[in-house]
Amino acid sequence: MKHILLSALFFLAHLSYSQSILGFQPQSAQEQKLAEQKFDSYLTTRNIDDWIKHLSARPHHVGSPYGKANAEFMRDLFKSWGYDAEIETYYVLFPTPKIRLLELQGSSPYKARLEEPVLKEDGTSNQKSEQLPVYNCWSPDGDVTGELVFVNYGVPDDYLQLERMGIDVKGKIVIAKYGGSWRGIKPKVAQEHGAIGCIIYSDPQGDGYFQGDVYPKGAFKNQYGAQRGSVLDMPIYPGDPLTPNYGSTKEAKRIDRKDATNLLKIPVIPISYSDAQPLLQALGGPVAPEKWRGALPITYHVGPSTAKVRLKLEFNWDTKPAHNVIAKVRGTQFQDEWIIRGNHHDAWVNGANDPVSGMAALLEEARGLSELMKTGWRPKRTIIYCAWDAEEPSLMGSTEWVEDHWDELADKAVAYINSDSNGRGFLDVDGSHTLETMMAEIAKEVMDPQTGVNVFERRKSADAAGAASAKSKKEILAKKNMSIGALGSGSDYSPFIQHLGIASLNIGFGGEDAGGEYHSIYDSYDHYKRFKDPKFEYGVALAKTAGRTTMRLANADVLPFDFKAFQKTVGTYLNEVTALLETMRESTEVENQMISEKRYVLAKDPTEKYVPPAAKEAVPFLNFSSLQNAVANLEKTAATFADLYAANPKPNTNVANLNKLLYQSERKLLTEAGLPRRSWYKHTIYAPGFYTGYGVKTLPGIREAIEQRNWKEAQEQIDIVTNTLTKFSIQVDMVNKILMMR
Amino acid sequence: MKHILLSALFFLAHLSYSQSILGFQPQSAQEQKLAEQKFDSYLTTRNIDDWIKHLSARPHHVGSPYGKANAEFMRDLFKSWGYDAEIETYYVLFPTPKIRLLELQGSSPYKARLEEPVLKEDGTSNQKSEQLPVYNCWSPDGDVTGELVFVNYGVPDDYLQLERMGIDVKGKIVIAKYGGSWRGIKPKVAQEHGAIGCIIYSDPQGDGYFQGDVYPKGAFKNQYGAQRGSVLDMPIYPGDPLTPNYGSTKEAKRIDRKDATNLLKIPVIPISYSDAQPLLQALGGPVAPEKWRGALPITYHVGPSTAKVRLKLEFNWDTKPAHNVIAKVRGTQFQDEWIIRGNHHDAWVNGANDPVSGMAALLEEARGLSELMKTGWRPKRTIIYCAWDAEEPSLMGSTEWVEDHWDELADKAVAYINSDSNGRGFLDVDGSHTLETMMAEIAKEVMDPQTGVNVFERRKSADAAGAASAKSKKEILAKKNMSIGALGSGSDYSPFIQHLGIASLNIGFGGEDAGGEYHSIYDSYDHYKRFKDPKFEYGVALAKTAGRTTMRLANADVLPFDFKAFQKTVGTYLNEVTALLETMRESTEVENQMISEKRYVLAKDPTEKYVPPAAKEAVPFLNFSSLQNAVANLEKTAATFADLYAANPKPNTNVANLNKLLYQSERKLLTEAGLPRRSWYKHTIYAPGFYTGYGVKTLPGIREAIEQRNWKEAQEQIDIVTNTLTKFSIQVDMVNKILMMR
Repeated sequence: MKHILLSALFFLAHLSYSQSILGFQPQSAQEQKLAEQKFDSYLTTRNIDDWIKHLSARPHHVGSPYGKANAEFMRDLFKSWGYDAEIETYYVLFPTPKIRLLELQGSSPYKARLEEPVLKEDGTSNQKSEQLPVYNCWSPDGDVTGELVFVNYGVPDDYLQLERMGIDVKGKIVIAKYGGSWRGIKPKVAQEHGAIGCIIYSDPQGDGYFQGDVYPKGAFKNQYGAQRGSVLDMPIYPGDPLTPNYGSTKEAKRIDRKDATNLLKIPVIPISYSDAQPLLQALGGPVAPEKWRGALPITYHVGPSTAKVRLKLEFNWDTKPAHNVIAKVRGTQFQDEWIIRGNHHDAWVNGANDPVSGMAALLEEARGLSELMKTGWRPKRTIIYCAWDAEEPSLMGSTEWVEDHWDELADKAVAYINSDSNGRGFLDVDGSHTLETMMAEIAKEVMDPQTGVNVFERRKSADAAGAASAKSKKEILAKKNMSIGALGSGSDYSPFIQHLGIASLNIGFGGEDAGGEYHSIYDSYDHYKRFKDPKFEYGVALAKTAGRTTMRLANADVLPFDFKAFQKTVGTYLNEVTALLETMRESTEVENQMISEKRYVLAKDPTEKYVPPAAKEAVPFLNFSSLQNAVANLEKTAATFADLYAANPKPNTNVANLNKLLYQSERKLLTEAGLPRRSWYKHTIYAPGFYTGYGVKTLPGIREAIEQRNWKEAQEQIDIVTNTLTKFSIQVDMVNKILMMR
Repeated sequence: MKHILLSALFFLAHLSYSQSILGFQPQSAQEQKLAEQKFDSYLTTRNIDDWIKHLSARPHHVGSPYGKANAEFMRDLFKSWGYDAEIETYYVLFPTPKIRLLELQGSSPYKARLEEPVLKEDGTSNQKSEQLPVYNCWSPDGDVTGELVFVNYGVPDDYLQLERMGIDVKGKIVIAKYGGSWRGIKPKVAQEHGAIGCIIYSDPQGDGYFQGDVYPKGAFKNQYGAQRGSVLDMPIYPGDPLTPNYGSTKEAKRIDRKDATNLLKIPVIPISYSDAQPLLQALGGPVAPEKWRGALPITYHVGPSTAKVRLKLEFNWDTKPAHNVIAKVRGTQFQDEWIIRGNHHDAWVNGANDPVSGMAALLEEARGLSELMKTGWRPKRTIIYCAWDAEEPSLMGSTEWVEDHWDELADKAVAYINSDSNGRGFLDVDGSHTLETMMAEIAKEVMDPQTGVNVFERRKSADAAGAASAKSKKEILAKKNMSIGALGSGSDYSPFIQHLGIASLNIGFGGEDAGGEYHSIYDSYDHYKRFKDPKFEYGVALAKTAGRTTMRLANADVLPFDFKAFQKTVGTYLNEVTALLETMRESTEVENQMISEKRYVLAKDPTEKYVPPAAKEAVPFLNFSSLQNAVANLEKTAATFADLYAANPKPNTNVANLNKLLYQSERKLLTEAGLPRRSWYKHTIYAPGFYTGYGVKTLPGIREAIEQRNWKEAQEQIDIVTNTLTKFSIQVDMVNKILMMR
């Protein structure tokens, strides 16, 4: 009888739990919902429009006058809304171009234009004196001349294919197209293969007329558009390359530039497709593999060229002030529990989309909260709004701040919520899976501005429509909750989660805002208003989504962490890496047979050069059992937590202690030593890929060791993840013990 | 004890069987192998070179003076080699262009050039007065003006996508790109959807600079090249449209042109990509779906255009003589058992590759046999060499001959061996699966000219190298024998197998002979010698392969039919159609859910027009049991045959009767009534697809009824195939009974 009663209580608890808000008792949930509705009512598209226009009115890269003006403008806005706001400045290395020369020599010489023209349809495109020209930031100075080779995306697999064709890039300049990896991977891999220079171009297939009408007729990249961007080896460490692991304050000691392990040694430049075409047409050698070919009206050859290419680059290696705006509102109950919400404010040029669209939504969110505060609402925990500078070169504003405030953040940071470019379309959330359940709840409460369904349902519809098979459509339709992706890199969450183990989120809308303006002078207010979010309503949708996230984390009775979703996801990752090993075993076996039977040689056209691959070492079996046990153990602990939490979402004692255990659980996933060959990255579950850049690798230590066929390291990394997951389980178990006290 | 002995005998029999030739006793196998080696030694690349040059020296389409001269030249060659050769002439309808006009009206008018230029690098490209201009044969006369819509490949699925975009082609002219189906499907489907005209262009992605350097620098289609070709609705019936089911002899009665069910009603013309670009650039409307876009340097839109397009075509609807060359050598033992070996000789223009490369190999094969006959070797069965005319318009030479000789062929034809274009690369064999085992044996005995392994191993290597997964690589590597594909349409085997049930084969080499000359004036000796088979050694390889096939069929003790391979293949087809039904059931269920939940609407950009599909009728369960039983029964009969055959490959009595039962087994697979809506096609296992054209559909009645969601017809067709397979089993059983007599 007692047992039945207990079950019934559990059932009721579950019911109310599922109808309310994770982390809130029924009473406070009701209050929270009212507050959120009020908050929504303050948000206007008009402000977002105005701020995007204002902040993108002039170029505002790090160190620029308008960048400083923007920081001051925002600081003053925050102040006017009642926040305790200030500018925290770091002094960071920031190279800008002095000389840029790219030319094709030989019988059909061509000098690259390297310049985006002024368009009368684009009101800020004529601000030539303030614009940073087209360049890749962190390219070294250099003056190289050599034959040209086309390397597709320039990722490791492409070089394997070149090897099969008997083509070596040693002493040559490579030309790679954008796409297939983060841009910084291309010169890094080229350098590893002995190339002396690297050109990255925007092929119209990925970023031009193939995608849609070009600017100014349509949104896509015209023939002169080019993509600026950083090529720092951020998978080693981001931030100021001269101050690894500590803040680049005025007085901080800098290491020598030649000692910075994330700086390239070969010059690199991005170019438009009109500049690329003459270079590609100069290539001889075999016709490029079908997947390498783009949408230029030429036959793509791999090279090398007979004519030589010269690339000469020189930079000003200046130190510039990076102005972070930090605006706080102190928590009423737990002022030492910090909810951090950030977006960067620096751009490559005018940056109406990247980053201003997200920045404007953050401002409107902060203003909405200030309006709410006027009605008496207060956050229980401290909220910190951040507008980062110097994100574009290498996440410098956020990274230096995080490194500078390491101790305090490690102690106090509950979570970090990031946004960046934002546009019309579908909700996209990546982040710590401990926060997945909260995000699913929020996604069901924010309405899509165009369709009148909530953003969870809209996203689900897009996922189902895009699924290839009936089977996966069915699975998606059956899903009751939203899944979130894992965080790689590419925006300011990186130092928070990967360096410091602060549970993080990255939130944005998009998918109906395609275009070719990215990191060009055409990322302007005019372009944004025509193609990205013409009514600025997705700016409001972002403010609602991220605002709810901030508010719930700030005011939850018990912090809305959920370990079941995390455990399930890690279980999936574990299955992936064990499957990866099996797949590699099977394919190694077959490939070795193919090689020993000369199948590839026999399959190839004998009139074409072909170098067969060497046989590979057979794939051993690895011992995953300790990790499998750790995941199984976490499953139990997480389930217990969920049950206890559901039965008693707010214990009477030890709330602060409980919450601290909850938000610090993510820290347990760090390994002190960091990942192999990149100790700055300490998270054992999520990291940007060593050879993908922005693209995430989950269980990175294990996965990348397997991919690189480093079996010894893979086994070591399995043991390291076992260790972090075990510590994580122990933390959850401590939480459970508190929840059991009544 | 007796049982053990019997097993041992069987084992020995199997052993000797596997080491010798299917259908030959040990003694005759040895003789056969010697004969084949001698035959090989007669074959020269020089002759093939000379004949390709001679036969392609001038344009030689049906009705042309040079076509007649070629027929006479070949007849005389056959005669000089001792064959009983003659020209059999049929009188066929053959429209040729009188007026061709295609223009874009409006503010940027453009008049299509419709002409391939003379190239100094191509010695026969200047024979303007004899060349057929660029046109689609069997287009009706017409003069239409309308808006233009781009329909991708113009296959039914493309129109479903247009429907989703809210675009109707009614009253409009469509432009489709080559590829995705046989060309004749494009105007047919356009017409079904109410279009008034059809333009087919060669996109550089599928057939131009995207593939490789263009002619004359490389082999691929230059900007002015265009693909001529037939657009008769051959999936209804091929041959002269005015004489369905009977030979178009001089006196034959013709039906009225308007009564020919395979003639189009809307005008259609093929154009080059330089002619297509201004038309495609005139299109407005939505950007084309990504898979629709080609390699022109434009944004592909779907349309409609605001400017109108005019297409005016007029033809000479003449009757022309089609000269088939028929050369026989009488069999010494079974003169009423015919081995028929053919290739067409007519071309769209000079046709060095299509068809002359195959024709020249056939000539060399026939000459080789004649040399062998000088040494005393004789075929036991009658061999008939055929050089067909009028293949290009609609397989007219072969079809009229088959229809004209129906009775005799039904009685006497053992098999038909076809070839057509031939080039450097890998062996490709399609055909009746009763002949698969023989072909596998032959493929292991013909050496690849470039690599020194046999053509089976070379093909297997290419298949393995091309396989996507390790699993399928492994399966391919493990294969001991060659599989052959099924026959659709596109060459002269069609009337033999699909109309008359004569076991047929189509043999050729290719894969390293890519190019864009197909059906253009650049299919010339100059092009062939540079890009297709420069040393003419694959011409010899074809002569060796097809020659062995002819010789083995002619001289086998017991005809080398094998029913196990056939049964296994049909079993696979049966699994495919049952799986197809299941897949459709699952996807219909999910799609209907997607529709009822408005998922597609929610997934679409609301600023773009979108018409959601209607829900579909649920997919019922069909009764496959009778067919499954028939296949299971055939498995037993075929296994018994294989065992008996292995134990006793030559019975003492009834050899002629046995062989007749064997070669007539394929006739049992015919259904008297023919396939639904196209009674000319009578084979129940193989047919060209109603909506794919050349592409084969196996178990066509069942498969196409399922695809068209005609469940009643699908069930009827299951019963029809059950019936033919049962008759086939009975025939094999009769064979077994003879083999059991000792």
